[in-house]
Amino acid sequence: MDEIRKILEAYKAGVFTLEEAAASLADDRGDTCHLGFANLDLQRQERCGFPEVVYCAGKTTEQSVKILAFLMARYDNVIGTRADQAVYEGIKPTVPTACYDATARMVYQHKDRTVFNGERTIAVITAGTSDIPVAEEAALTATIMGNKVERIYDVGVAGLHRLLARREDICRANVNIVVAGMEGALASVVGGLVSKPVIAVPTSIGYGANFHGLSALLAMLNSCAAGVSVVNIDNGFGAGRMAAMINGMR
Amino acid sequence: MDEIRKILEAYKAGVFTLEEAAASLADDRGDTCHLGFANLDLQRQERCGFPEVVYCAGKTTEQSVKILAFLMARYDNVIGTRADQAVYEGIKPTVPTACYDATARMVYQHKDRTVFNGERTIAVITAGTSDIPVAEEAALTATIMGNKVERIYDVGVAGLHRLLARREDICRANVNIVVAGMEGALASVVGGLVSKPVIAVPTSIGYGANFHGLSALLAMLNSCAAGVSVVNIDNGFGAGRMAAMINGMR
Amino acid sequence: MDEIRKILEAYKAGVFTLEEAAASLADDRGDTCHLGFANLDLQRQERCGFPEVVYCAGKTTEQSVKILAFLMARYDNVIGTRADQAVYEGIKPTVPTACYDATARMVYQHKDRTVFNGERTIAVITAGTSDIPVAEEAALTATIMGNKVERIYDVGVAGLHRLLARREDICRANVNIVVAGMEGALASVVGGLVSKPVIAVPTSIGYGANFHGLSALLAMLNSCAAGVSVVNIDNGFGAGRMAAMINGMR
Amino acid sequence: MDEIRKILEAYKAGVFTLEEAAASLADDRGDTCHLGFANLDLQRQERCGFPEVVYCAGKTTEQSVKILAFLMARYDNVIGTRADQAVYEGIKPTVPTACYDATARMVYQHKDRTVFNGERTIAVITAGTSDIPVAEEAALTATIMGNKVERIYDVGVAGLHRLLARREDICRANVNIVVAGMEGALASVVGGLVSKPVIAVPTSIGYGANFHGLSALLAMLNSCAAGVSVVNIDNGFGAGRMAAMINGMR
Amino acid sequence: MDEIRKILEAYKAGVFTLEEAAASLADDRGDTCHLGFANLDLQRQERCGFPEVVYCAGKTTEQSVKILAFLMARYDNVIGTRADQAVYEGIKPTVPTACYDATARMVYQHKDRTVFNGERTIAVITAGTSDIPVAEEAALTATIMGNKVERIYDVGVAGLHRLLARREDICRANVNIVVAGMEGALASVVGGLVSKPVIAVPTSIGYGANFHGLSALLAMLNSCAAGVSVVNIDNGFGAGRMAAMINGMR
Amino acid sequence: MDEIRKILEAYKAGVFTLEEAAASLADDRGDTCHLGFANLDLQRQERCGFPEVVYCAGKTTEQSVKILAFLMARYDNVIGTRADQAVYEGIKPTVPTACYDATARMVYQHKDRTVFNGERTIAVITAGTSDIPVAEEAALTATIMGNKVERIYDVGVAGLHRLLARREDICRANVNIVVAGMEGALASVVGGLVSKPVIAVPTSIGYGANFHGLSALLAMLNSCAAGVSVVNIDNGFGAGRMAAMINGMR
Amino acid sequence: MDEIRKILEAYKAGVFTLEEAAASLADDRGDTCHLGFANLDLQRQERCGFPEVVYCAGKTTEQSVKILAFLMARYDNVIGTRADQAVYEGIKPTVPTACYDATARMVYQHKDRTVFNGERTIAVITAGTSDIPVAEEAALTATIMGNKVERIYDVGVAGLHRLLARREDICRANVNIVVAGMEGALASVVGGLVSKPVIAVPTSIGYGANFHGLSALLAMLNSCAAGVSVVNIDNGFGAGRMAAMINGMR
Amino acid sequence: MDEIRKILEAYKAGVFTLEEAAASLADDRGDTCHLGFANLDLQRQERCGFPEVVYCAGKTTEQSVKILAFLMARYDNVIGTRADQAVYEGIKPTVPTACYDATARMVYQHKDRTVFNGERTIAVITAGTSDIPVAEEAALTATIMGNKVERIYDVGVAGLHRLLARREDICRANVNIVVAGMEGALASVVGGLVSKPVIAVPTSIGYGANFHGLSALLAMLNSCAAGVSVVNIDNGFGAGRMAAMINGMR
Repeated sequence: MDEIRKILEAYKAGVFTLEEAAASLADDRGDTCHLGFANLDLQRQERCGFPEVVYCAGKTTEQSVKILAFLMARYDNVIGTRADQAVYEGIKPTVPTACYDATARMVYQHKDRTVFNGERTIAVITAGTSDIPVAEEAALTATIMGNKVERIYDVGVAGLHRLLARREDICRANVNIVVAGMEGALASVVGGLVSKPVIAVPTSIGYGANFHGLSALLAMLNSCAAGVSVVNIDNGFGAGRMAAMINGMR
Repeated sequence: MDEIRKILEAYKAGVFTLEEAAASLADDRGDTCHLGFANLDLQRQERCGFPEVVYCAGKTTEQSVKILAFLMARYDNVIGTRADQAVYEGIKPTVPTACYDATARMVYQHKDRTVFNGERTIAVITAGTSDIPVAEEAALTATIMGNKVERIYDVGVAGLHRLLARREDICRANVNIVVAGMEGALASVVGGLVSKPVIAVPTSIGYGANFHGLSALLAMLNSCAAGVSVVNIDNGFGAGRMAAMINGMR
Repeated sequence: MDEIRKILEAYKAGVFTLEEAAASLADDRGDTCHLGFANLDLQRQERCGFPEVVYCAGKTTEQSVKILAFLMARYDNVIGTRADQAVYEGIKPTVPTACYDATARMVYQHKDRTVFNGERTIAVITAGTSDIPVAEEAALTATIMGNKVERIYDVGVAGLHRLLARREDICRANVNIVVAGMEGALASVVGGLVSKPVIAVPTSIGYGANFHGLSALLAMLNSCAAGVSVVNIDNGFGAGRMAAMINGMR
Repeated sequence: MDEIRKILEAYKAGVFTLEEAAASLADDRGDTCHLGFANLDLQRQERCGFPEVVYCAGKTTEQSVKILAFLMARYDNVIGTRADQAVYEGIKPTVPTACYDATARMVYQHKDRTVFNGERTIAVITAGTSDIPVAEEAALTATIMGNKVERIYDVGVAGLHRLLARREDICRANVNIVVAGMEGALASVVGGLVSKPVIAVPTSIGYGANFHGLSALLAMLNSCAAGVSVVNIDNGFGAGRMAAMINGMR
Repeated sequence: MDEIRKILEAYKAGVFTLEEAAASLADDRGDTCHLGFANLDLQRQERCGFPEVVYCAGKTTEQSVKILAFLMARYDNVIGTRADQAVYEGIKPTVPTACYDATARMVYQHKDRTVFNGERTIAVITAGTSDIPVAEEAALTATIMGNKVERIYDVGVAGLHRLLARREDICRANVNIVVAGMEGALASVVGGLVSKPVIAVPTSIGYGANFHGLSALLAMLNSCAAGVSVVNIDNGFGAGRMAAMINGMR
Repeated sequence: MDEIRKILEAYKAGVFTLEEAAASLADDRGDTCHLGFANLDLQRQERCGFPEVVYCAGKTTEQSVKILAFLMARYDNVIGTRADQAVYEGIKPTVPTACYDATARMVYQHKDRTVFNGERTIAVITAGTSDIPVAEEAALTATIMGNKVERIYDVGVAGLHRLLARREDICRANVNIVVAGMEGALASVVGGLVSKPVIAVPTSIGYGANFHGLSALLAMLNSCAAGVSVVNIDNGFGAGRMAAMINGMR
Repeated sequence: MDEIRKILEAYKAGVFTLEEAAASLADDRGDTCHLGFANLDLQRQERCGFPEVVYCAGKTTEQSVKILAFLMARYDNVIGTRADQAVYEGIKPTVPTACYDATARMVYQHKDRTVFNGERTIAVITAGTSDIPVAEEAALTATIMGNKVERIYDVGVAGLHRLLARREDICRANVNIVVAGMEGALASVVGGLVSKPVIAVPTSIGYGANFHGLSALLAMLNSCAAGVSVVNIDNGFGAGRMAAMINGMR
Repeated sequence: MDEIRKILEAYKAGVFTLEEAAASLADDRGDTCHLGFANLDLQRQERCGFPEVVYCAGKTTEQSVKILAFLMARYDNVIGTRADQAVYEGIKPTVPTACYDATARMVYQHKDRTVFNGERTIAVITAGTSDIPVAEEAALTATIMGNKVERIYDVGVAGLHRLLARREDICRANVNIVVAGMEGALASVVGGLVSKPVIAVPTSIGYGANFHGLSALLAMLNSCAAGVSVVNIDNGFGAGRMAAMINGMR
């Protein structure tokens, strides 16, 4: 009921056209919502454990807003990645529970704040300060998906004692996300210290031959430490999602 | 006669210099029109089935406008790709039949609206919403060339039921154009469902290691499904043209 | 009946183990045949118009032989690509109708020699003599799939008159497959001459900066002629299959 | 005691020089065994959950044999990857419990056959038959590390029904390892069906523009399905190790 | 004398500091002029046949202006490439003979208009209109170096008759410069028509997989026609210089 | 004492929050200063010979300012690289000894002006004027680290006499830093003239196929002269640091 | 007459089948000779100044022999490149004037030994001894095409005096071919010394990051010296042909 | 005198032809020895501190032997890299002091065993056992050039305690050479521990996405630790030479 009301309100506020509002309501019990430019997967939560996540880059602001409005009406926790401020401005009026994190570039709704995994934390570790935006995308994703996150930032291998000082925290974590640009060595060093999985996120931070993250990507794929797997360059969301899945296992 | 009148009007409106107008008129019965900076191929329609298409990127607005003005005077259906709003603004005053599609970035004239191929449709399928601009370039191209087009958007493989729900439409189409970025998997999946040719268009949509479309391009070239061939990254026009050619066979 | 007999014979000849023979017989009316190391798609002919094609590279000789033996028992026309002489030697004793084409590296069975498409020919055009093995893979594939093929070899653009001498043949063809290495220019030139689709196959022929076919691949993807689409480097089979699909349309 | 005896036997059999045997015995209670050309990490099991794994490529046969002999004396379960038959021949005489799997190219000892994770299985899924060697490396690794493995081979996306027929098995698995070459689309499709983590392994199987696994690697990194992370090309071991770590969580 | 006067004037106009003016005058008979940030090669004309050419990209406007002012004081014909309007604005007040060509992005002085090579022309040929800026850089360079240039624009291979219509002009030229982006096929086709050298210039014009000129570059390096050599992507100047050198031989 | 006072002043000026100021003061005798978004390595000077250097790209202006303020309070000589004017504007008010070099893009403090290495100079050599910004980053770095630097600019190999004229200076230097874009040939030529180490810095200066410094990078890595090692593209800082280390040996 | 006799002899010796001999004789006055697998361009000499050159790589020995036999019957001077000893063994019996150069990997006939260009020499310069095979391909090509060649080998830039000692020879040459692997710096250095064109040939000689000639190729394309153009990696023939064309101009 | 005698002996033994022996003797006091295929730089020792080093790959065995024979006659310490056993077999008979190291693939003469640098050691550190051949090339080079070398092998970052156990040795070294494949992280970790220069050598060891050393190369170039510079992939010699130069400074 609540969902229907929200769709109606959004329609009134001009977010949806008549047609779109109709589609949103009609599809309510199906497995897909047909918005014309988008085909929302309404089985995703049940099938994969979390509703469809909206990748806002490449979409118009209007498209992003409509999709998020629909999803936020239907689900408690919703994520839009690579969103700029304009998407947030577009959705705020009709969805007051929507939030924006400028560092992580995420528009999201986090109504159900249950922490599913008790004391099992996900550590998000960065090599440097410049890697923080990607790390925040990972941390926020994992948090919204019901995990406890510990941030361990700026512990790159050029000053090993900074990392070793946090060794206990790292070993205690259930999953480690390592975010690093340049030579991405941190993933291998962390991988060699722990018995839990490491999700490595290469970032595009670095001088010329970083080639937009290629150096860190290749380094992480070639990690001499076992138990390291890799997601796309700068893809904090992907790492957060993967870590949440792993942390949720029992 | 009509063509000559239009050239004269464009000359008067300042689109052509005296010299260019003279050239345009003189070349009227030849196989090339020499505009100085351009050498228009007047055999293209007869030889290849459609007049020369203008790739506006890299040309000045003025050059694009002149070429399009000439072609629109001579042919019913004309296409300019990768055109920004300014090209349209330049041509509108003297060619009122010119249209602009901002999503597809195309300036075009579509006077002859004959549909050549009866019920034989071309399906244009996208993996996501962000792929729509490229898909629209393909769809509009095919439409102007006299084909019936069916749009099947946002049916990427992460939610297979969305695709399978449209399976019948896909199998009924005479040619399928699959537009996808990221890992471009949709081309292989569609290729495995149909007995008709699939034209795959990789797009430059995606996180870092997409490398401006390279990931989707390589994936589509390596498709495990037979009956898939590939056009350039983001080249919706090329796919639309290819599909129109195939659909026109009998 | 005939199929069952052949499976039994192959079992006796030692091609299949008892288990595999049983699987082959049991799956007879299902949509998949489970051979343990392979999962044969028995819907492929009906769904896509031709039975599953066996890519022999990367498989052991024994695996290729078993799969081909099963398919040749079941279907009239069967293709194995990238097969060396040993695969042929392995299958010949139990499947006397199997053939081998050393140039095209194909093991095949071509029992149903119907030509489906009347006078509609597929032209297979090469830039040079070194491109012939890939061209033969394409030509043989198209032939086995019921098409009339015309070979137009060694007409590369360095001697344009050789190509123009064959212009009529090329324009008469219903589909053109262009096979070229080095700079792959032939695809664009042919594409500019015809109103029918061109399938371009880059080959790995050339000096250093050919980079195993990359130069021709990129060139063909960037063809300035419309109506050209591209398959994988050296993938004659893919081009033949695509061309057969297109030629089969009506 | 047992370990010391084995070292002495290996010394007698000529596997170790006097010096190496001395080092092996001396280091017995330390955290590193110094063999001159190698520095074995004796904390690895305790720190990371499994003893050091030997990457035999790039080592001389003699070096691989010595390292494996030492580790097999000390630990129950030991793995050597990328090992050819010669390594096995070298170690067999003094370590009769050593095994060799030619498909997976692994020399290993699997004495402790405890299955740690009860009914929680790891599914190893391949797109084609040619991907099996890499898949076997993953499967054997996970098995030796105490996991129950289910093999689901040759279910590539060109024949989707083969995959969907196994959907239940795939969804029941606790972790899925997807092994695919060419366009690597299977990882995304599986990722879209499950709520458990997917470890994707690109293989170097494919025609020219596969570029030794690059096409599948990039595709998997760009997967549109969340919950997919990637290991190095053809790195079955890495996937097996990662999956075992994840499956071991509780 | 004239040169000294000009340096003094430029000093007075504030182009040179006192120090720089002194250096400019002092170096007058040496082989290098030391401007601090630049070290002008005063032997270049004698050694290589033309004074040093100034590559303005990467230099500050001020640096470009000073270097050009010095060279224009000393030599009749001077070239600055990749110069924006600001460089021209900076030099115009003190060097009224300086010219600017916005299409070619060149600032230059062309006082000695001798044509050294009689009727021996250099043909500058483009595939399309978008290639003209690079072609103009080549044409203007060759002209300033004393050559007669014939422009043959927009004769790409998709409409072969446009090229063949100019065949006589092309064959009559002493050197041909071929400027093309996309698949760069024009270089091979021209190379196959002539007995004179072809200088090929790849341009960065094209859809995605052009990869900033890589497709045309590789294609031209792999030309199946002999007598084709290649300069850097978009390097019209380099082609013009090379052609001038060749045309100047006797 | 002095350091504490400066931290307090910066706190008052609003550079640090209360928390950050507290952390800065507390960490005073530890080996790391925890600023939340950064983890400053306070052992770096002792361990590696110079305090941590701040890579400002990818950090917010605010983050850069805070880190630099802390370091400048604690150490005499401090370096921030890739800093824009805004960082300098941010730090100037509270740290009046901070300087900015717009060419080198460095914010720095250079209070201890001791020259450690007597007459042992580091030569910084560029191929062209466009390479100067990178060279200045190297030169300034080496200077701040206590070295005497000699600049030898614009002596690229196209005019060998300019280089040979400086041969004595080059041979006298204790270390040579060679900064070059395009084909980076200067590194090899200098390497062949000297018996002292050469640090090569590729720059991203050049026409298309420079590919953002790749051409110079590969050239320098492949230098036929021994005694040449390479740092990252445009990484003047890295070269300056390396040269300072070498020059400091005795 | 002589040509007919030779074809007949080759037919008798079994080089040609009856059909091929007939084709060879029939085509005698046409512009193409149709050998089935090859389409020999009989206008090449007249159009481009030298008969078709046979690239033997990728052709079977038998194909190469037949093509060369035909051409050697018809023309005095004939070249086959990338030919192994077997091609020579195949042609020797029927064409006693055929020669083989194992270093250059060329089979050739050099009956007309006229030197067309008087004292105008082509210098072939190598950086090292390992570059000699490619240089010999260039030198032999130029020689057979009627040029005087001067070899200047092993004068790489690591020992500049070796090059400068030959400076006079280099400056006297009418065209310089520079053959170099590794960093390819020699092309730029020679380019800076001369006023005549330089043809640069990158070779695949070098340690790892040479990437099969890529380092030298990119370096040469980015040469800071004007008047340098580039042919394909290891393409000595292409350089020799280009140089011969240039040297033949007057 | 000794040198002349050795040349004569080599002549008698058939290593040199009469002509080559004459050249070898004649050039004795010049700065270059002209052997036809080679141009030996006789100033190298004086200019750069060590005689010319022979890169044997790409040279014929005969060429390598002649060059080494000449150099070994003239200099005490001589190095040939990338030499196979055959080169050694060729030189042994006439130069009994020649040695061969099969692991390092070096033929060398080490007669002058002076250690120039007292207790200043060069540490050669490897990540794994597979990196040892490259490390030995570096170590042997440095030894022959008069340095004390300490080998620290198999201390990769996956087991950090192995590295930290050697920390004192590493910090005591005057120069560190770090040899690592895969992700090359060791260079950064070592770089962060020391105040002396680190020379990083990427090796081609690793699974697929190592791409023949590219992953380690890019990682090392992007090292977050300052004071790290890089030589070519697998170029142990280059690192040894560079380290010897640095270690020799005072």
